[in-house]
Amino acid sequence: MPVTLDATAADFETAFDKLLNAKREDSPDVDAVVAEIIADVRARGDAAVIELSAKFDRVTLNPDTLRISAAEVDAAVAEVSPEDRKALELAADRIRAYHARQLPEDAEWTDPDGATLGWRWTPVSAAGLYVPGGLASYPSSVLMNAIPAKVAGVERLAMVVPTPDGVLNPLVLLAARIAGVDEIYRIGGAQAVAALAYGTATIPPVDKITGPGNAFVAAAKRRVFGKVGIDMIAGPSEILVIADGDNDPDFIALDLLSQAEHDESAQSILITTDPAFGQAVEEAVEKRLLTLERRAIAGVSWRDNGAIITVPDLDAAAALSNRIAPEHLELCVADPQALSAKITHAGAIFLGQWTPEAIGDYVGGPNHVLPTARSARFSSGLSVLDFMKRTTLAQMSPEALRAIGPSAERLAQSESLEAHGLSVTARLRKLNT
Amino acid sequence: MPVTLDATAADFETAFDKLLNAKREDSPDVDAVVAEIIADVRARGDAAVIELSAKFDRVTLNPDTLRISAAEVDAAVAEVSPEDRKALELAADRIRAYHARQLPEDAEWTDPDGATLGWRWTPVSAAGLYVPGGLASYPSSVLMNAIPAKVAGVERLAMVVPTPDGVLNPLVLLAARIAGVDEIYRIGGAQAVAALAYGTATIPPVDKITGPGNAFVAAAKRRVFGKVGIDMIAGPSEILVIADGDNDPDFIALDLLSQAEHDESAQSILITTDPAFGQAVEEAVEKRLLTLERRAIAGVSWRDNGAIITVPDLDAAAALSNRIAPEHLELCVADPQALSAKITHAGAIFLGQWTPEAIGDYVGGPNHVLPTARSARFSSGLSVLDFMKRTTLAQMSPEALRAIGPSAERLAQSESLEAHGLSVTARLRKLNT
Repeated sequence: MPVTLDATAADFETAFDKLLNAKREDSPDVDAVVAEIIADVRARGDAAVIELSAKFDRVTLNPDTLRISAAEVDAAVAEVSPEDRKALELAADRIRAYHARQLPEDAEWTDPDGATLGWRWTPVSAAGLYVPGGLASYPSSVLMNAIPAKVAGVERLAMVVPTPDGVLNPLVLLAARIAGVDEIYRIGGAQAVAALAYGTATIPPVDKITGPGNAFVAAAKRRVFGKVGIDMIAGPSEILVIADGDNDPDFIALDLLSQAEHDESAQSILITTDPAFGQAVEEAVEKRLLTLERRAIAGVSWRDNGAIITVPDLDAAAALSNRIAPEHLELCVADPQALSAKITHAGAIFLGQWTPEAIGDYVGGPNHVLPTARSARFSSGLSVLDFMKRTTLAQMSPEALRAIGPSAERLAQSESLEAHGLSVTARLRKLNT
Repeated sequence: MPVTLDATAADFETAFDKLLNAKREDSPDVDAVVAEIIADVRARGDAAVIELSAKFDRVTLNPDTLRISAAEVDAAVAEVSPEDRKALELAADRIRAYHARQLPEDAEWTDPDGATLGWRWTPVSAAGLYVPGGLASYPSSVLMNAIPAKVAGVERLAMVVPTPDGVLNPLVLLAARIAGVDEIYRIGGAQAVAALAYGTATIPPVDKITGPGNAFVAAAKRRVFGKVGIDMIAGPSEILVIADGDNDPDFIALDLLSQAEHDESAQSILITTDPAFGQAVEEAVEKRLLTLERRAIAGVSWRDNGAIITVPDLDAAAALSNRIAPEHLELCVADPQALSAKITHAGAIFLGQWTPEAIGDYVGGPNHVLPTARSARFSSGLSVLDFMKRTTLAQMSPEALRAIGPSAERLAQSESLEAHGLSVTARLRKLNT
C-alpha cells in the first residue's frame, strides 16, 4: 500500500518530511573496483578494455573490432521494421526541432565608457555518449543525448554500448545513425567511461561524457569528472501528478505506473484535491497491477515509494510540489497554465489530461534526461547548453582604461595583488605620456 | 627559468604535451577528515559548527553570534575609505550591467501538430556563498559570486566567511552589502559548507553553494554535491598571452606576473611570433621579480610553470591555445578580433594591448570565476545561469496526441515499457470513442 496523506492532518508535516527525505536507492560502494578499472585502462589502454569486455560482457574483441563498423550497423538497422523506424524518425525530428530553439545567442556591445564586452558560445569538440546494454538499452535515450550534442555542433560524437554475448541492438544502432553519432564502440562499464575520458590507441579521448548507466558507470563518471565534463548522475525516476476530481482515474493510474515500472526505487506520487478521486486512482492502480507485464517491479515501487496526498486546494498542491521539486510533473487540472505559473521547481511539466508523461519520454520534443532526487531545485534537464560553453570577451579602448583602470588599481592594492595593479598602472602611464 | 619552446622544433610535440599534462597542484587528501566534519555537523548542527570554529578559527561563538549582525556590518564598513568604496561600487555596477544581459528568455510555441511546447527559467530559491578568510579573502570574489545570484533572482543569499581570531574584513563585508547578500555567518571550512548544505537550527539550508576555498572546502563541496548544486572546483589560476612583436615587453611581463603572484602553482604562458620579443619579456619579468611584493610566490610559479613558446604565425598560436584551453587569454596583436574568431576554447578573452587581464579581475564586467585546468574545453565561467534552472513545458491538444501518440506507443513497446504505452493508448481510445 502506498502512503496516504492528508495535508490538513495534524501529523502531516512529519509524514511529508519522511516522504521527502526517504532514501530510496541503495548505491553499492563500487568505488574501489572502479578506481582500479580506470587505472588499468589508463595504463594499458585497448588491452585493458578488451580484457574487461571479455570478463564482463563475454565478448572476444581486438583493437580492430572495438568499433562497430558501418557495415555492421547497416546490417543491424536493416532488421528494424518500417513502423519502428518511422516512430524513431518522428521522435528524432521533434526532439531536433525543440532543441534547435535552445541554441544560445552570442552578444557584443560597447558601453558608455568605451569598453567592448560580450560573449561567444562554442560547442564542445568531442563528446562521448554512454548507452547501457541489455534491458536498459533504450533507443529513446540515444536520441535524447545525441541530438542535443549534434544540434550544439559537436564535431565528434562517440558512443559506447556494451554488447553482452556479442548481441547488437538494432534499434539502438538505428537511433545512433538517425541522431548522427560518428563512432560506436562495443564496450561498456567503467572501462568504457575510462576509455572515453583518457583515450586509448583506438579510441580518441572526448571532452564531455553523458548518458545513463549502472552504479559502476556512475562511479566512473564521478571519478573522471574534471578531466572531462559529465552530465548529472541520475537517480531513480519520479513522477508527481497533481489532479482534480475531473479526470479518468485509469489515465492517472497508468501515468503513475509508467514511472513505477522503470525501477523498484522509482517514486510515483498523486496530489489531489478530491479524496474520492484519490481512492479511485488507487483502485485503478491495483487493477492495472494485476496484468501489467512489469507488475513485479511496478508493484514494489508503488507499495514502497508511492503516495497519495489530499490537499484542500491547488495552491496547497503547488506548495507541496515545489518542496518535492519533482523530475516529472503532470498538471491534470481544469486550468493547467494557471497552476503551472505557481510551480518554481520541476524538471519538466506536462499540462492537461492529454499529455501523459510518456509522450515526453519519446516524442514530445523536450529532453527526457531530467533532474532527479529533488535536484530540480538547482539543476535542469539535458539541453544543447550542456554541449556548449561560453567564452567572455572584453576589449578596453584607451578611454575605457582611463575611466575604469584606476578603480582596478585601487582594488588590486586592497587585495595586496601588486602585479595586478601594476599591469594597469604601466598602461595608464604610457597613455598619459 | 621558465620553459622556452619553439613550435617548429623537432621535439616540440613531446615538450608541449609535457607542459599540457604537467600536474601543478598537490591536493592533500583531506577527504576522510572532511567526511567526519560533515557527519558531525549533520548530527549536532550549531554545536558542531561552534566547536569547529573554536578549534580552527580561535573564536568563541554561540548560536546568537554565528550570524554577523547588521550593526557589526555597519561598524565595519564605516572603516572603508571613500576611495575603496567608490572602486567597489564601480566594479559592482559594471558586473551587474554585464550579468543583467545574461538573463535567459522563456519560450513557448505551438507546433504544426498542435503541441504547445516551451520552457521557463526560474531562480534557485536559496544560495550559499563561500568566502575564504585571511589573505585569500577577496572582496572582488564576493561581487563576482553574489551579483550573478542576485541578478538571477535568488531570494535568499547566505554568505559564510571565517573570521580567524575574530577579525572581520571590512571590504569583504562592504562588498557583500553592495552585492545584496542577505545573511552573513562568521564560519568557514568544511563545517560551513556542511551547515549551508544541510542546515542547522540557526542556519537554514541552501540549494546551491558557490565560491572558492582551500582543499577542505573543495572536498566538502564535492561531498555535498547532489544534496545541493555546486559551482566548479577551481584549480590554480592560469594566463596565456598571445603577443606579436609590437608590444611593450613590460606590459606583458606584468600580465604574466599577475597570475604568477596568486599562487606557486599558477601558470603563465606567452606565445609569440617574435623570438626577440619573447626574450625581451623574459628579461622584463626577471626585472620586475627583483622588486615585486609577492616575488617569492611569483618567482616560483614563473620558474616552475611558466613557458615562452615561439610560433611561426598566429594560426599556429591559435591552434596551440585551443589545445591549452586557457582560463584567461590575452590577444595582444594588431587584429585581436580576427585572432579571437579562431579561438574555440577559452574561459575569457582579453583583446588588445589596453586590456590587461587584471581589468577582468575587478572592473571589466564579465565574471572572474573561470574554468581552470583545461576545463574550458567543456565548461564556462560563472554566470547568471548557474543560479537558475529551466523547466521544460509540453501540452498536447487532442489532435497532437492523435498525431504523435501512436509513435510513442510504438517506441514504448520496443522498449518493453508497457505502462508507458498504455498511458497513451487509454487516452487515444477515449479520444476515438
